[in-house]
Amino acid sequence: MKQLFGNAVVGQSGGPTAAINATLAGVIRGVQAQLGGCIGTLYGMRNGVEGLMQEKLIDLSAYFDSEEKLSRLEHTPAAALGSCRKKLPKMGENDAFYEDMIAIFRKYNIRYFFYIGGNDSMDTVAKLSAYTKDHDYEMVILGVPKTIDNDLVGTDHTPGFGSAAKYIAVTTQEIIRDCAVYQIPAVTIIEIMGRDAGWLTAASAIGRVVNGIEPDLVYLPERIFDLQRFFADVRAALAKHPNVVIAVSEGIRFADGHYVGEGTQTGTTDAFGHAYLAGTGKALELAVKAEIGCKVRSIELNLPQRCAAHLASGTDLWESVRTGCTAVKAACEGVTRCMITAQRVSDEPYTIEFEPKDVSEIANKIRYVDDAFINMDSNHVTDACCHYLLPLIQGEEHGYYENGLPNHLIFD
Amino acid sequence: MKQLFGNAVVGQSGGPTAAINATLAGVIRGVQAQLGGCIGTLYGMRNGVEGLMQEKLIDLSAYFDSEEKLSRLEHTPAAALGSCRKKLPKMGENDAFYEDMIAIFRKYNIRYFFYIGGNDSMDTVAKLSAYTKDHDYEMVILGVPKTIDNDLVGTDHTPGFGSAAKYIAVTTQEIIRDCAVYQIPAVTIIEIMGRDAGWLTAASAIGRVVNGIEPDLVYLPERIFDLQRFFADVRAALAKHPNVVIAVSEGIRFADGHYVGEGTQTGTTDAFGHAYLAGTGKALELAVKAEIGCKVRSIELNLPQRCAAHLASGTDLWESVRTGCTAVKAACEGVTRCMITAQRVSDEPYTIEFEPKDVSEIANKIRYVDDAFINMDSNHVTDACCHYLLPLIQGEEHGYYENGLPNHLIFD
Repeated sequence: MKQLFGNAVVGQSGGPTAAINATLAGVIRGVQAQLGGCIGTLYGMRNGVEGLMQEKLIDLSAYFDSEEKLSRLEHTPAAALGSCRKKLPKMGENDAFYEDMIAIFRKYNIRYFFYIGGNDSMDTVAKLSAYTKDHDYEMVILGVPKTIDNDLVGTDHTPGFGSAAKYIAVTTQEIIRDCAVYQIPAVTIIEIMGRDAGWLTAASAIGRVVNGIEPDLVYLPERIFDLQRFFADVRAALAKHPNVVIAVSEGIRFADGHYVGEGTQTGTTDAFGHAYLAGTGKALELAVKAEIGCKVRSIELNLPQRCAAHLASGTDLWESVRTGCTAVKAACEGVTRCMITAQRVSDEPYTIEFEPKDVSEIANKIRYVDDAFINMDSNHVTDACCHYLLPLIQGEEHGYYENGLPNHLIFD
Repeated sequence: MKQLFGNAVVGQSGGPTAAINATLAGVIRGVQAQLGGCIGTLYGMRNGVEGLMQEKLIDLSAYFDSEEKLSRLEHTPAAALGSCRKKLPKMGENDAFYEDMIAIFRKYNIRYFFYIGGNDSMDTVAKLSAYTKDHDYEMVILGVPKTIDNDLVGTDHTPGFGSAAKYIAVTTQEIIRDCAVYQIPAVTIIEIMGRDAGWLTAASAIGRVVNGIEPDLVYLPERIFDLQRFFADVRAALAKHPNVVIAVSEGIRFADGHYVGEGTQTGTTDAFGHAYLAGTGKALELAVKAEIGCKVRSIELNLPQRCAAHLASGTDLWESVRTGCTAVKAACEGVTRCMITAQRVSDEPYTIEFEPKDVSEIANKIRYVDDAFINMDSNHVTDACCHYLLPLIQGEEHGYYENGLPNHLIFD
């Protein structure tokens, strides 16, 4: 394929992470370093393809005129360009949408399209790839992965996951310390993100191979959740020591397919008369309280899991930047309709190589936690799982502070 | 008062914080440095006075034989010695209890009693002070303050508060970034600890005087919570921008005295048929959803507020150590039946002085957020409040890491 010369556009899409801005910085660094030398101006689309369609573009090449700004961007959580959840039309259903998009590309002479995101974003990349393949506008389209869920197929792990995993692993260690101070029997349930895949919840157990400190029980959505087995597990744990800590994925389900956290019931109202939707942790808290009767508490780690840039994984941030750079380099070498994946070369020393893979083979699939990573009793992870996870949380990046608070980079 | 020579015992009591071990380290450092030269062995009581009564004592003088151990202790969250919630008998109600305690003091030649804790712990200190005053065992009894709630009277602030405030201030900044990525109207409610006093919730707003980034609305338990006024506030905020972030204390109450989070209702059950107790944030989430109809989310910061040692305030840790040292020095100078308080000498440069105050004047009182720190509309804090709080969150202490995880100090 001949090398294209033109401008580029980059967008962020889907849920925020602590590392998606590092990947954006990587794309900017790649263009500024002229890796390949084929890209002129790099535009950023505000709020993903939604902003692109409204021509809400900023000139990132001009904006990032200092190392200080880029470095601050790398340590800023969420998506500095804004995000969106827009799903592109299916092929053949709304050609006018794609024609409008191509018209914008023509207007700005955009020949390179980089989209940073997770599963839904790779669907966007795959659709745009399919459309442009058959139409008269030559361009390079690349997906740059980002998701705390670690659930993209074809890659060893995803940028953003390591930082969320580190936050979860460290916070679990701290919660276990907190719970250890009293002597009365108590159960603490930590609810962790992950609707379909249990990677983040598994990260709560990394301490096993570092200092031996981990939750007593870990439940992932890859296994059917059985309430009676759960009660038996909790009783067995309480028989060993008084302070039982349990990690559960928000997405665990009963054998009938219902989420454990589905708690909307007729007649279930709060102080204002409104219907209730329980969280998974809350539902289990109440179940343990009723069945076992000891002190119980549930903790939903919630948004800080994905936006705690103050406790990012150094490995994750560094790989995120490199993933962005690699996308630019690959694009200028003519690679298109691909996502940049990471392939693990070895565990010790931990080494990865980047490899572009056909995005149509990645979009709309889910990578579940391997069978070998879940124990026989379906109530914990295996050592192999911890060893897979451990390299991803190495290194501490706390970001920049000014007057006691983080000094985030915010576009005006 | 003549100087007593003998051994000392130190305990931790009440809820854990990220800084209570720093105060313990301060007491150890004080004894090891022989500030006053009157203390022989320093014992640590496991699980506060509960462990003391069972003679569960460890020789801290012997255990802490290296600077590395002490420094790790300072960066370990929760209470390394364990804690308890034991309330001592009222004067005259159970003399046998106090006699047993004095017998243990005699056995170990303990003449110095240091108790690190909050309001309930100062009650213990006050009672033991009162008992020993009238009985034939001369000893020095000092309270060393610790509470994330900042609700002890007679002191500018309490050790432990600054670290919790920093965690809340930083996490709020990150949550605001996370919420800013989408364009659809959305309300995010952050529930922060504080049953009676709103100090911790106020800390969510410190960003105002640093970078201008703060929650749109802040509600403290010092003011009556009115649901209709709240809805009007939220509507006004949504009219200005789509991503509204609100900080609320768990302890806010309606005019009738009921907590907003009191959600136990007849017929209110979850998937398992158990009664529900809503959190304050959850209750408001459902109220906004029903009344305004936009996207709403609630986040309960929960235990990490008090145990996130990975984001401690440098100022808080340093003052916590100094408070412990100061207690030892004061004790050897004959000060007894007091709590060590901090008096602010100036804001700029921020300077404090330590001063022992009669513990009976402190125990069982609550220090509320000053009127001057809450705005006229009762829906935010004032600049004066931010300026009071700002010095307390200065400096970042992230602790020690090993293989990607915190390297906490844990007694065997």
